[in-house]
Amino acid sequence: MRRITNLRSPAFFVSSSAVGGREEGLGPLGGGFDFIDPSDEFGQKTWEMSEAEMGRVALNIAMRKCEISHEDIDVIIAGDLQNQCVASAIALDSFGIPHVGVYGACSTCTESLLLASALLSLGSYKRVATLTTSHNLAAERQFRAPVEYGAQRPPAAQWTATAAGAFILSADSETVDSHRKTEHPIGAAITEISVGRLIDGAITDGSNMGAAMAFAAADTILSYFSESELTPRDFDLIVTGDLGAVGSKILREILSEKLPTAAPRHEDCGLKLYDMKRKDVHSGASGCGTSASVLATHYLPMIERGELSNILFLSTGAMMSQSSLLQGNSIRGVAPAVRIQNLNSMGS
Amino acid sequence: MRRITNLRSPAFFVSSSAVGGREEGLGPLGGGFDFIDPSDEFGQKTWEMSEAEMGRVALNIAMRKCEISHEDIDVIIAGDLQNQCVASAIALDSFGIPHVGVYGACSTCTESLLLASALLSLGSYKRVATLTTSHNLAAERQFRAPVEYGAQRPPAAQWTATAAGAFILSADSETVDSHRKTEHPIGAAITEISVGRLIDGAITDGSNMGAAMAFAAADTILSYFSESELTPRDFDLIVTGDLGAVGSKILREILSEKLPTAAPRHEDCGLKLYDMKRKDVHSGASGCGTSASVLATHYLPMIERGELSNILFLSTGAMMSQSSLLQGNSIRGVAPAVRIQNLNSMGS
Repeated sequence: MRRITNLRSPAFFVSSSAVGGREEGLGPLGGGFDFIDPSDEFGQKTWEMSEAEMGRVALNIAMRKCEISHEDIDVIIAGDLQNQCVASAIALDSFGIPHVGVYGACSTCTESLLLASALLSLGSYKRVATLTTSHNLAAERQFRAPVEYGAQRPPAAQWTATAAGAFILSADSETVDSHRKTEHPIGAAITEISVGRLIDGAITDGSNMGAAMAFAAADTILSYFSESELTPRDFDLIVTGDLGAVGSKILREILSEKLPTAAPRHEDCGLKLYDMKRKDVHSGASGCGTSASVLATHYLPMIERGELSNILFLSTGAMMSQSSLLQGNSIRGVAPAVRIQNLNSMGS
Repeated sequence: MRRITNLRSPAFFVSSSAVGGREEGLGPLGGGFDFIDPSDEFGQKTWEMSEAEMGRVALNIAMRKCEISHEDIDVIIAGDLQNQCVASAIALDSFGIPHVGVYGACSTCTESLLLASALLSLGSYKRVATLTTSHNLAAERQFRAPVEYGAQRPPAAQWTATAAGAFILSADSETVDSHRKTEHPIGAAITEISVGRLIDGAITDGSNMGAAMAFAAADTILSYFSESELTPRDFDLIVTGDLGAVGSKILREILSEKLPTAAPRHEDCGLKLYDMKRKDVHSGASGCGTSASVLATHYLPMIERGELSNILFLSTGAMMSQSSLLQGNSIRGVAPAVRIQNLNSMGS
């Protein structure tokens, strides 16, 4: 069983965008978002449709940034947290772009980037896009209870982000060069992918997803470095999706014991999106929009500017549903990974 | 925008399996199933867990048929209809195979085969598996009403299959040859893939999914033959997933007008699985287990035996959720396609 694939040709980022709601705008990365709707409504009558519209806006902005139209994208890979992924289906049908729907819970962003890189490697597609969305109020209603109930949240609970992240990848570095001349230069590419395994960490508490996902993140990181010739020292950062404070602590304890050089390089998107002192954020951000928007607003710009040259990026997903939790089933975690490099740091 | 990819190297089928419940065992393809549980329970206490166990059994049988273990599979691509795809997550975590979760509603089988072929083309994986499941009673409870309510079903309604289909694909034809010496020869490969577009057919009736998906199937078929050098005459069959009687009629009317040679080659898995005269089958079978199990029990064996040499296979998905229907949103259809050929009919 081999998990890492070194891509024959890298998948170049040609554009990215992040769209968010009120809390995301108020957070430390708020200034990096391309569009914030402080009402969280995005002009729609239901939270479910607000999420779809947020996704549509994110993809539109990403296309506009690199001056391409929907006809220039061969495939879009998309997912969200709503039952049957209807948010992305409704967001995307007006574009008419061939569509691959994925469900990886909060691992959707990296899962999509991984598959987009694989599709580009086929050699017949020029550009593949990804779209990942989550909406706090759609998620609360679906997974827990309507917010009007005022149900109390335990300290391990996380705050589902109202956020969308869109990325456009190209097989062609010339396309990237032409876009680098614009005001939105992108100098990053995915060079390796590693598929995640489902790990049952025996957590049955839907308010403790960070713990449920930490074991899957550890599995992917340890497997990566046992298979790769690289060591954690070759990476500037090892970034997880939304383990939050509770899950990050567990992951670092595992890494400190089994791969000590990895632990100090770890950062978590769930601890980046909000001011952690704000009410109700508790253990940090979650929802698949978290890693998507933090990649778009924070890590990708740092890689483009050359402040980071090489990161291992893992979104982390907690596979569960209302009925699986009510039936007492434990949450399965999964953590796919992609290696993202600055173009200047890549070998020719 | 390009939709067809001619795979540089074909993805060879090395094994397949189908597992079903009572109605599937009684149907015309019943004898082709590898395992039938007439109780539909698969030894579990809830229908949701029955679906997960059915999937686990299907993958185990597929591995046993080609005498490989879970360690010989590099990636598995899996999906089901349960909220957040928990059935496949629970089915698969015990195998420890790196996992890619997809959601394409009833298009999951072909979507998974398409992505498996793409991952094999990367050149670093030896074998990629797919698993698709649906369970009638888990689906009824989740999408409609508990069956105990005895809600009446309109004539356009379809019967969600209790069925799982697993496929193991290999990048290596030598592996296939070695398995062809066993009692389960497989002589088929995926040679082309075409991603489906989301099509809004303005159907808001969740009991008329066939109509909602027919337009997506037509879009993929018409697009395929406008892009390809091949004509419908080059194919033995054009097989759709689960349009049922209502959706198939719509598709054939569209094809008769726009691509007359395609219409007589059309067959639908939803019309193959059950005796259509049986009570409550109404418009035919649906659920993503339909196309997966009909491919495994009917079309793939015919291709292996040389009775078919070349088919275009499209599973058809209806993207909707309980809440999207209640909010009055129309159902988006999607229909990815793969071309499956008999090995003898393939050019060298």
